[in-house]
Formats: sequence, C-alpha cells, structure tokens
Amino acid sequence: MAATNEQIQQAVESFFLLFNGVIIFLMSFGYTLIESGGVRSQNAGHSLFKTLLILITSAIAYWISGYAFSFGGDANVILGTRFWASERFGAKDRYPNVENFTSSNNIYKLNNQDPYIHYFYHYMLAFLVTNIAASSFAERCRVPVYVLFSIIMSGFVYPFLAHWMWGTNGWLGAVVGARDYGGSAIIFLTAGVAALIGTIFLGPRFGRFEPRTLPLFGHSIPVTSVGAILVAFGFFVLNSGADHRITGRAYGDRVGHGLVNTLLSGATSGGTYYLLQRIIENIQSSPKHLKRRVFLSTVNSILAGMVAVAGGAVAYNPWSAVIIGFIAALSFLLWSKLLIKIQIDDPVETAAVHIGGGLWGIFAVPIFRRTIGPNVNGEFVEDVFNSIIYRFGYGESWRGLLNSLCTAAVVMAWTAFFIGLLFLLLKLLNLLKVSKEEELRGIDLFQHGEPAYALRIYCAACGEQLQGKTIEQETNGAGARSNFPTIVTDAEGAIVPIEYFSDRHGTGNSTDTSKIKSLNEENRV
Amino acid sequence: MAATNEQIQQAVESFFLLFNGVIIFLMSFGYTLIESGGVRSQNAGHSLFKTLLILITSAIAYWISGYAFSFGGDANVILGTRFWASERFGAKDRYPNVENFTSSNNIYKLNNQDPYIHYFYHYMLAFLVTNIAASSFAERCRVPVYVLFSIIMSGFVYPFLAHWMWGTNGWLGAVVGARDYGGSAIIFLTAGVAALIGTIFLGPRFGRFEPRTLPLFGHSIPVTSVGAILVAFGFFVLNSGADHRITGRAYGDRVGHGLVNTLLSGATSGGTYYLLQRIIENIQSSPKHLKRRVFLSTVNSILAGMVAVAGGAVAYNPWSAVIIGFIAALSFLLWSKLLIKIQIDDPVETAAVHIGGGLWGIFAVPIFRRTIGPNVNGEFVEDVFNSIIYRFGYGESWRGLLNSLCTAAVVMAWTAFFIGLLFLLLKLLNLLKVSKEEELRGIDLFQHGEPAYALRIYCAACGEQLQGKTIEQETNGAGARSNFPTIVTDAEGAIVPIEYFSDRHGTGNSTDTSKIKSLNEENRV
Amino acid sequence: MAATNEQIQQAVESFFLLFNGVIIFLMSFGYTLIESGGVRSQNAGHSLFKTLLILITSAIAYWISGYAFSFGGDANVILGTRFWASERFGAKDRYPNVENFTSSNNIYKLNNQDPYIHYFYHYMLAFLVTNIAASSFAERCRVPVYVLFSIIMSGFVYPFLAHWMWGTNGWLGAVVGARDYGGSAIIFLTAGVAALIGTIFLGPRFGRFEPRTLPLFGHSIPVTSVGAILVAFGFFVLNSGADHRITGRAYGDRVGHGLVNTLLSGATSGGTYYLLQRIIENIQSSPKHLKRRVFLSTVNSILAGMVAVAGGAVAYNPWSAVIIGFIAALSFLLWSKLLIKIQIDDPVETAAVHIGGGLWGIFAVPIFRRTIGPNVNGEFVEDVFNSIIYRFGYGESWRGLLNSLCTAAVVMAWTAFFIGLLFLLLKLLNLLKVSKEEELRGIDLFQHGEPAYALRIYCAACGEQLQGKTIEQETNGAGARSNFPTIVTDAEGAIVPIEYFSDRHGTGNSTDTSKIKSLNEENRV
Repeated sequence: MAATNEQIQQAVESFFLLFNGVIIFLMSFGYTLIESGGVRSQNAGHSLFKTLLILITSAIAYWISGYAFSFGGDANVILGTRFWASERFGAKDRYPNVENFTSSNNIYKLNNQDPYIHYFYHYMLAFLVTNIAASSFAERCRVPVYVLFSIIMSGFVYPFLAHWMWGTNGWLGAVVGARDYGGSAIIFLTAGVAALIGTIFLGPRFGRFEPRTLPLFGHSIPVTSVGAILVAFGFFVLNSGADHRITGRAYGDRVGHGLVNTLLSGATSGGTYYLLQRIIENIQSSPKHLKRRVFLSTVNSILAGMVAVAGGAVAYNPWSAVIIGFIAALSFLLWSKLLIKIQIDDPVETAAVHIGGGLWGIFAVPIFRRTIGPNVNGEFVEDVFNSIIYRFGYGESWRGLLNSLCTAAVVMAWTAFFIGLLFLLLKLLNLLKVSKEEELRGIDLFQHGEPAYALRIYCAACGEQLQGKTIEQETNGAGARSNFPTIVTDAEGAIVPIEYFSDRHGTGNSTDTSKIKSLNEENRV
Repeated sequence: MAATNEQIQQAVESFFLLFNGVIIFLMSFGYTLIESGGVRSQNAGHSLFKTLLILITSAIAYWISGYAFSFGGDANVILGTRFWASERFGAKDRYPNVENFTSSNNIYKLNNQDPYIHYFYHYMLAFLVTNIAASSFAERCRVPVYVLFSIIMSGFVYPFLAHWMWGTNGWLGAVVGARDYGGSAIIFLTAGVAALIGTIFLGPRFGRFEPRTLPLFGHSIPVTSVGAILVAFGFFVLNSGADHRITGRAYGDRVGHGLVNTLLSGATSGGTYYLLQRIIENIQSSPKHLKRRVFLSTVNSILAGMVAVAGGAVAYNPWSAVIIGFIAALSFLLWSKLLIKIQIDDPVETAAVHIGGGLWGIFAVPIFRRTIGPNVNGEFVEDVFNSIIYRFGYGESWRGLLNSLCTAAVVMAWTAFFIGLLFLLLKLLNLLKVSKEEELRGIDLFQHGEPAYALRIYCAACGEQLQGKTIEQETNGAGARSNFPTIVTDAEGAIVPIEYFSDRHGTGNSTDTSKIKSLNEENRV
Repeated sequence: MAATNEQIQQAVESFFLLFNGVIIFLMSFGYTLIESGGVRSQNAGHSLFKTLLILITSAIAYWISGYAFSFGGDANVILGTRFWASERFGAKDRYPNVENFTSSNNIYKLNNQDPYIHYFYHYMLAFLVTNIAASSFAERCRVPVYVLFSIIMSGFVYPFLAHWMWGTNGWLGAVVGARDYGGSAIIFLTAGVAALIGTIFLGPRFGRFEPRTLPLFGHSIPVTSVGAILVAFGFFVLNSGADHRITGRAYGDRVGHGLVNTLLSGATSGGTYYLLQRIIENIQSSPKHLKRRVFLSTVNSILAGMVAVAGGAVAYNPWSAVIIGFIAALSFLLWSKLLIKIQIDDPVETAAVHIGGGLWGIFAVPIFRRTIGPNVNGEFVEDVFNSIIYRFGYGESWRGLLNSLCTAAVVMAWTAFFIGLLFLLLKLLNLLKVSKEEELRGIDLFQHGEPAYALRIYCAACGEQLQGKTIEQETNGAGARSNFPTIVTDAEGAIVPIEYFSDRHGTGNSTDTSKIKSLNEENRV
C-alpha cells in the first residue's frame, strides 16, 4: 500500500514534532541536572526528586485541563473549551459533525501532524515551563509546594498564555498580531517570572545575604555539565522547530536558520559574558586565587543567548543572532547583579537567565525579523541588510514593538498574579519553606530520608567495608575508624541526622547504640 | 534525481526505525546507570563495565545466530533459518531466486524499511533485554557469567521469543493470534524473569537479609537520575514506535497514542506508588527522620507503568493508560514486597518492575485494546467508551485473555528453563559468585583493579597533592595526613586493598613500604 | 497546501541532516565527559570548561571563515572563497546570477538539504574535530591555548581538509579520487594528529614518567561512562549518515550498513582488546590485586573500532567490519604502548584511539569497499565474497591504496605543520602550560577558582552544616571537627589553596583567620 504525497508529508511532520517533543523531555531534565549540580550536595537529591513529582502532576494536570485551555477549539480568543482529559480528542476523523481539531499554529494554519503527537509536544512545553520555574525554589522549598505549583502552572497559568499566543484564535497572536515563534515570552519569560515570584516568597537561603552577601556554590560541575549539554541540545531543536514544520522549501530554510541562529546567539552571549567577567575581575584586581570563572554562570550566559534568540530564531539573519546574543549577555549580567543587589536569592540564576534573556528576546522579534527573505509560500524575495531601517521607516516595526510590550506586560502580570497568589496563600499557611534546621542540615535527609551521595558507602570503596554490620559491631571495636570523618549511619548504612547520637564529635565509641538499634528495629522493610 | 513516492516513504520509515534504534541504545545504558547509581559505590564500576561486555558479546552473538532465529525467513513457525552472520542478507535485491527478506511485523506486513536498519533496531532490543536482566546480578556476579549469559540470552533465548511473537509466521503472534505490540511480554517480562532466575541462583547480597532484613542503599542519586532520564526517553520512543510505522494516517495516530499513553501510564503509576508509600508510612508512624521517599523506587514505579502500557500503547485510549498505570503501581508494589518477604534479593528492583509491569501489561492488551478506532487501512470507525464490555460480551476478549495467558506462560517457562539451566551449571562449577571477601570489599577493586571513584584523587583537589610521589615519600613526613581517612594507595595513586598493609588503622607511618614498592615495580605499564 | 514529491524529499533529507547534526553535538560533549572522568578530580572542571570555550570560539571562527574555506563555491580545488560570515549565503534562491550554493558531497551531487542545515551539520564536525584534539591537552594546558587552538583548528586547518576531501571540487576527493566517507582521515586522523602534536609540546604531566612510568588514573568511571554512551550514540549516527542521504533504496541500504558495521567493528575491537589485555596480564602474571581491566581503555578500544570503520561504514559488508574492528584493536594497542614507550603522555589515549583507528581506517576503504553491491542509482549488482581479490587483481585497489596513502600523508603533514607552528609559538612565549605548582594542586582552583566537586559541601550532607558560617566561627569551637580531613575553605564555602594558611596539617585552630577574613572581604559579590 503505497502512501500518497499528503500522507507522507503528514508522516514527516508528525515525526519531526515527535522528535522535537522527546528531546524537549531531555531538555527539561537538563534544567534539573543543572540545578542539582548547582546546589549544595545536601539538597541535590531533592532537586531531582521534585522533577519526578512535577512530571507526574503536570502530566495529569495538562491532560485534564491544560491542553483544553490551550488548544481546545478556536471559537474563543480567551480560552479553549474542549478536549478535557482528551475527551472526544482527535475528533476530526471520528466526529465529522463537531468542530475539527485545530492546529496550534495561528499564523500559517498549515500543520497537519497527528493531534496526539501535537498534544505530546505541547505537554512537553508545559512541563518545561513548570520545571524551569521550579529550579529557583531550590534548597528550601517543601515538597507539597512543587505539587501545587505544578498543577497551577501546567494546568492553568501557562495554557492560557499558550492559547493567547499560539492558539488559532488567540487574542495576542491571531488578533493583536504579536509574534513569539519559539517562546522567548510564552515559555521562558513565563518561567522566569514564576521563578522570581517563587524565590521572593521563599526568601533567601540561610547564609546567602546574612551576615554578608556570599555565594553558596554548587557541589558538582560534572552534574551541571550533563544538564547543560541536554539543555543546549534541546534549544537547537526547540528553536529550529518553532514553526512545527519542515516540509516546503521555506520551512527547511527557517529550520536551518533556527539551528544556526541558536548556535551563534548562544556562542556570542557566552563569549561576551566571559570577556566581561574577566574585565570586571581585572578592574577589581582580586587576589589571583579568588578570581572565579564560574562554570554555572558561563553555562547560564550561553543559555541566556539561546533564550533571547528563541523568539524568532527561524526568522533572523545570522548577523542578527550575533547582535541578539551580545545584548542577551548584557541583559543576563545586569539582571543577575540586580537580583544580588536587591538581595533576592536566585540559586542557579534561573530568573536572571530567563527574564534577562526572554524579555530582550520578545523585543528583538520586531527589530530583527526578516520581512523580506523566504516567505511562507516558499518564494524568496530580495534580502537587504538595511531591513531594520526600512521597516522602522515605514512604521511596521514600531507596531511590532508595541505588540512586544503588550506581550511582555501580559505574560508578566498574568504569571505574577496567579503564582504570587499561590505562594502568598502557602506562606500564610506556613507551608512554603522547610524549617531552619532542615535547611541547614539538608532537605535530602529531612524531607526524603536519603542523601544524594551516600558518603559512608563511598568510603567502603576505600578498603573499609561497613555495611551489613550493625552500628554496634562497628563502634565497639577498640580504636576502630578513629580517623574516619564523623559520618553517623544507622544499621542500614544510611546516614542519620547527627543529633540522634549523644556523642557528636567523638570517635563513636560512646554512641548510645541502644537508641540506634531500636530505631532500626522499627524501620525494617 | 527526484525520488518516487514509494522511495520517500521507505526513507521515512527507515529513518524512523533508525531513530528508534539509536535511542533504544541510550535506553539500555540508562538501565545500566540506574543500576550503577543504585548499588554501593564499591561496585559501581562493575555495573558499567559489565554493560560494555554485554554490548560486545551480544553484538557478535546476535549477528551470528540471534537475528537468524528471529527473522531468518518465514517458512517456519518455530525459528528462522537464514541470515546466519548476515549471510546472504538483504537478498531481496541481489538474489531474486531466494526467498525475500521479510519484515518483522507479522500483523500488517507493510513495513518496507531497509533490512540492515531492521537488523540494527532488533539488535538493540536484544541488547536491551539482556542488559535489563543483567542489572539484577549486581554487586556479586563474576565477569564471565555476564559473557555467557549475554551469549545465551541475545543469541538464543530472546530471538526465539521474538520470532514467535513478531516473526512473519511465528506461532504465538501469527498463528495463535496473541498481541504484544511494544514488548510487555517479549521484551520486559522476558528480562524480568531472567533477572529473577539469576538473582535467585546468585543468592542475596551479604547483609541483605542476614542478620535482619535491611536495604542496601545505592550511592548516587544523580547517576541513577541520568539513567532514569534516558530510560524514560527510550520508553516514549519504543512504545510509540511499536508498529515500526509512521506513514499513513492510522499510523500517525497510533504513534501519537503511544507517546501520550506512555506518559499518562508512567505518571499515574509513579503518582499512585508515591501516595501509597506515604500512606503506608503514616500507618506505620515511623520516626520522622526514618521516613523515606526512596528516589530509586519512585523512578521504578514510573518505569513499571511504562512497561505495563508497552504491550499496546499504540492501541489504547488515554483513560485506559491511566487505569493501566494505576494497576501497574499496585503490581510493582506487591512484587517488590513479595520478593523481600520471601527473601529474594532484587538489588535495583529489576524483577519487580519488569515482572510486575510486564505480566500485567500482557493481560491489559485484550482488555483495553481499541477494536474500534483507527484501523490499519487508515479509516476511522466510531469509538465508544464501552468497548470493553462490548468485546467481552461478544467473547473476543476472552480469547484475547487466553492468548495473553499462553504468552505469559510461554515466555516465563522458556526463559526460566534456559536461564535456570545456565545458572545451575555455573553454580555447580562454582563460577557464579565472587568470594565473600570480594563481595564485602567491592568487586571494582578485586575483579577490575580500579574503583569507580578514586577517592584519594578527589582529596587531591582539597589542597593536598599526593600523586606522582611514592608512598614512601608521603608516609615518611612526620605527622603527615594524620587526619586523612585511611585510604591506602600504591604509588600509582590507585587504591589498594588494605590487607597488603601491616598497620590497618594507623597513620600510615609504620606501613611496610618495601612491599608496596616491589608491587609497584612489578606493575609498570 | 500539499507539498510536491521533491519538497518532501528535501524535507526528509534536511531532517536527517539536522538529526545527525544535533547528535554530533552530544557526541562532542561525550568526548569531553570521557576526558573529565578520565583525569584527576582536581582538573575535572577545567576539562568541561574548556569545551564551553571551544564551543564559543569555534562557532564564531567557523562562521567567519571555516565554512567559506570548506564549502564556499566549487571553482577552486584548494579552497572555497564565498560565504564569509554567511554573507550572501543560501544565494541559490535569492541571487540567481551568482554561483549556486553547492552541496558538500563531491561524489554524488545529489544532496538537496537546506544550506543552513548543511552549515549547522558541518559546524558540528568542525567542533568535534577541535574538541577531540583538545582532550589530549588535559590537566596542564592554559585557558588561552584552547581559545587560539580552537580558532586555528575550526577556522582554518580542518576546513581546508574538508574542502579537499568533501568539497564539490576538492583536489583529494573529486580530482585524485580518494574516498573517506565518514571521516576516518579528515575528522579522526586530523584530531588524533593535532592531539599528538599538542601533547608533545605540552610535555608529560608531572609524575607520569618521572621518577618511573606510572599511570595517572581518572577519578570517575560514571562520568567517563556517560561520555562513552554519548560518543557511541554519535558514532552510529555519524557513520551511517556519511552520505548525508537516506532517500532512495541504495541510500537506505548504505545507512543501514553504516549502523550495523559501526556496531560490529566497535564490538569486535572492544572484545579483541579485552582478550589481548587479559592474555598479556596472564603472561606477566601480576599479583591478582594489581590486574586491571581499565574501563577507560576498554571504552577507547570500542571507539577505535568505530573510528576505523568510519571511513567506509556505509560501503562495507558486515564481515569486513569485523575484520576492520579486529585490526583496529591491534592498532590502538600498538599506538598506545608505543606512546608510553617513547614517553609521550596521552592522558585519555586520544592520540592512540584516533591515530590508531583513523590511520588504519583510511587504508581499509580501498581494501574492503564494495565495488559491487548497491550502487548510487539505486540498482543492485551481484555481490561476491572475493571482491577484494578481484579488485586487487584488476589494479583498482592498488590505486585506492595510493590514494589512501596520499590522504594520510596530506592530513598528517598539514595538521602537524600548522598545529606545530601554533604550539611552538606559544611555547616560545611561555604561554602553553600552567606552572608546576598549579599542575600539582589542580587547575580548577588555580585557573578557574572553583573545584569540580566541592568536597566541603559534600561533607555538609553528613550531618555537619558549615556553610554560611565564617571560618572564625567554625574553627574557634573547642575540638570542633578535629577528625575532619584538612579541607580549608574560605567563608564562602569554597575551597582555598592551602598555602594561605599557616598551619597546614593541624586541626585548623591555629589558622591565621584574620588573613582569610580579609580575603573574603575583598571578594564579596
């Protein structure tokens, strides 16, 4: 059974969207790994665990209401009203009398991917937004907060914004005419604002600004690095797939531009930040050993460039991407310094990257978008370097800037209002933050009962084998392990908060082992 | 040279299968990383190394016999008999007089991917099965066992099952009419049963059930986490690509359903397990610090949902996937508790995930499969919610359940018999398990000669630089490193089992350095 | 708007190339992770950071001149002369009067991917070459060297070689008739030679050959392992996509061969090396605990097989790939032992893998390439086992061997000359290597100001919470932390080189805290 042209085209577009969707899944977890490596090891497991919870709750929330708000019909400029819990979804073929499933792309109305793949792709964007925002709550946020935040964010706040910009009849995109191809505003600015609101309500981590402003460095550059690789990988795909199209000469060209522009903007932004940081260091003339080329910040500056170019990566010329990346680095640097100045703790610079990059990105669209070049019908018209001046001269871009202003204001106000309300409520109920003791000792042990790195178990690799013995056996041997670090474990080999032991700094010989024993008896699996 | 419609369709299908194949390669290694992070650090390198060996041996074994048994011609319901070592492979074009290369898909006979890509994809499944099963042998299995197991599993045991279910003329799939689209039974139940048999013969790890039942926790949540990301990534692709088709409206729809159902089942299963665990905790009212939200188990419950839905992810409605995920969580929990109860050590819960998920998954197919909905000719027929009752009323599904029962019994008996035989033989020859001393001190050092984490080298980052000196130099300095943990290394900076030193717990000053020196002299590279 | 056949074909090819490009991005970082896990932890962050810098600088350099030299027009056998900084790029559609954008494939001239995706793909190759080479500079190379090397390599040295072999009119490929499909010579031999030149000029790491030849082992098998997974993943894609084509029966077949041959050659090479190593061990009869199955070397031997088969993976029979892998293992082993013998320090065996594999790979092309089999018009002709003898009998392959010799000589001479010049210059200016003190104490602290693993922060997970306190507070408590390792941090919790403290091996009580305090005061963020 040979397929028709149209069937093959549909398959190619479906495959392309599937490809984009699964890679954005990796991208989300990339953000989580950046966070996990960028916090202290006592909270590294918490960072990873919270993303499992966000995956679970956002999958359900987006299924029940999220997709319906975003893409449930095109009759309404404000919200979609069908496909709750995928009810009567994919109705095009099965329910000829009801309104057809409609594509997400308000501009071209050409997409013809399978609706379920469309659903999957857009869920991955909702998961991405929620997960990016949550990375700024690191090291002090309680577990239920993530669950509630995830439901609100992926089931309500983000889906409305997506409808307004990308829905067939959304008021921002289709009616007003604003453009945000890859999500500088709808995805990244939204995430950045939610991150900022959350971190303000949570307050700074203990020791971040009191008694002095001091950074609290992460614990693992390799973990951050693996995350950064996945995020950059995702950006290439997300930005180049912003049209959700690859068939047709014009779309191939736009996809290709998306790839090259993401690369150039990211590289320029990273390079600019690195040079600026070196210059600032030399002006301050710090002692040599205190000069820092912080890995996380360099990664973040690259990402800021990729965020900024997302708005129109498919529609810029390469030299525009270089300019956008340059300004993104400045914007990221300013936001990052500003937040420190006003003592807002942004643990892994989530807010600085995504507000800094996203806000600039949405204004870059009308400035740099090619009005000339390959058009959507696959025809090419003359490209001129001075398109910017041309368009501003004729007023088109002034209107674009107003649209961008409108988009930015709407995204910020909408997100800040609802996320602010949620966090205010949780703060009033005192459900927001772990206790000071838990924050100091680590959320992994106190909220999850297991450390990210079982150090005792690491030490077992060094010629000592302790597991499988009880604490009694271990500690009763004369002089045993007197030069081991004071890592106290229960008989399971898991690390136990130290206050359960009477002798904190001793060799362990005087530990009240009866207490430990009874704890373990209670805790059999 | 413009391509014809058929050529392009073939290219799209080939590309889709290639995409699936390389991502399942990542998925296999994802399982390895889950295992490596989920065991103690003294065996973390062993877990990774064994997968290299499985990759090597299974690639050769599958080349020589595996693919031939599975897909070597369609004349035989029991086994294929051609294409040994890819001999006369791809014969369609070159040997018009011999039987054509035949597709793997016994149901539709529509695939037209390139045979070599088909080979590559199915090798990756064989590697996946073998590697999943081997993760339950962790922390105590000798190196040659992996090699022999890999040859038997990927060259003989799994290929027969694949032929029976997926071969053009296999007796289970084509003749009896059983259905296992994504491999709940053939891939995951097979792996789970092999894992169970292996771990029974190997016996529990020292300290797991004696003197008390105590968990032996893993050493690194980030490593487990990177693995989990890759495995979930792979499940989206594996489950949605179960038809090996994307062209044609019906197939796009099925691929899309595969994605969404995998997501929903995994999320529901993970969420259900998490809630159940919290409830059990509260009923037991353990002391607060002993409550555990074990990262590995939460990951495993998500995977159990994805395993369960694999059987027919392309053919379920989303609400079915939610139900399947819910039951998968219960099944996983029960199997996991059962194995502990009967004192079978399942180090990273491999058997519980894949038997728990896979067994339920194969029975879910006849219950939830859409008989109505998009059919294979690309036409859509009315979808009704009560399809389950409808089908059971007409008896179709009762037959389906019998088929599932048959499939499950065949998979379990076949796998258990041959893997049991292998392990029995190896046990009688005493080749199965490392010595008790090696198990206690770590396989990495004793079997591989290098630890996964060279802790001495870590310490060098803390301001101490010891490498490049000999042990003599280091230990002769008065009072040197008296507060270092007793990590004993040879002059190469590699960690040495501690019994080579006379003074175990001292500062190292009285170490018999002449012995070390001579060992090193012998060991020059 | 239904697309035409040709448009869909173009989309499929563009998508295929995009897919290859983004995965080669992962592959590059995979090499970085292999390096980072394979060096000592004191330099692990440096390895990762340098790749960020290479990404940034090579993206700019390749944009400005690299692509132009490689693919900037086909008028010239030596170099391309258009598309500087993507100027007038994609001119086919917009500038009908200028020479068309031309495909990279000098043999078939059939590619019709989008030029920007072509650009992106080839940038990723340039990044790959540069990044592989730089991994041999590990643990001793200064930051600016990477920047300069990256500019020269990706903006000048590699682009010329790519033009010569793959440019439409390149003198090696199109004129002389040499073949290097996947890059055994142009990508991997180039990288290997640059790696060798660099490491010779940098000299061995301290302690590697003085006072005795001793390996300096890496610090983390899991990090190396994640890297290895990504690199192998990349090889499947790179080797099978060497034609940059998938549409058309012949190309599907070639892509499939690429996948299977990469797998078989890698597995054979890894298996051969492993067995050889065991045999050598047994002959030397080392004490049991000193036997090593080094993870990194086993990975490297698999990669050497994949490098060797790259040259013609799309054009070999599977049994040829097995032979190629077998010889690749011998070649890798010989090069690796040779470099140790002549005391050239090759930290993660980069040179041995890529010269050993690449040099053999380029000679394997004429020996094993199928002259019969699927041809480029999609027709198949009879395949015979004795094609080797046949071709050598008729002289075709003798000419092929001469071409390979020519290719190898050109690649080695060109790369060695320019990279040698760069390193000679930097050596004369004394800009090459970090100081001996920095090398001993770790580049991460001295050049970057942050360790890859903040061990103090790890310890905080063990029930001690130190961050946010000043050093004074911590050290003044009587008896506090007397059994902690001597990790000295400043008030930020970051690890400080130990010489800033007067009492190196004490408990920290007698530390000159006023000095620390003042350093911290200067270093507020």
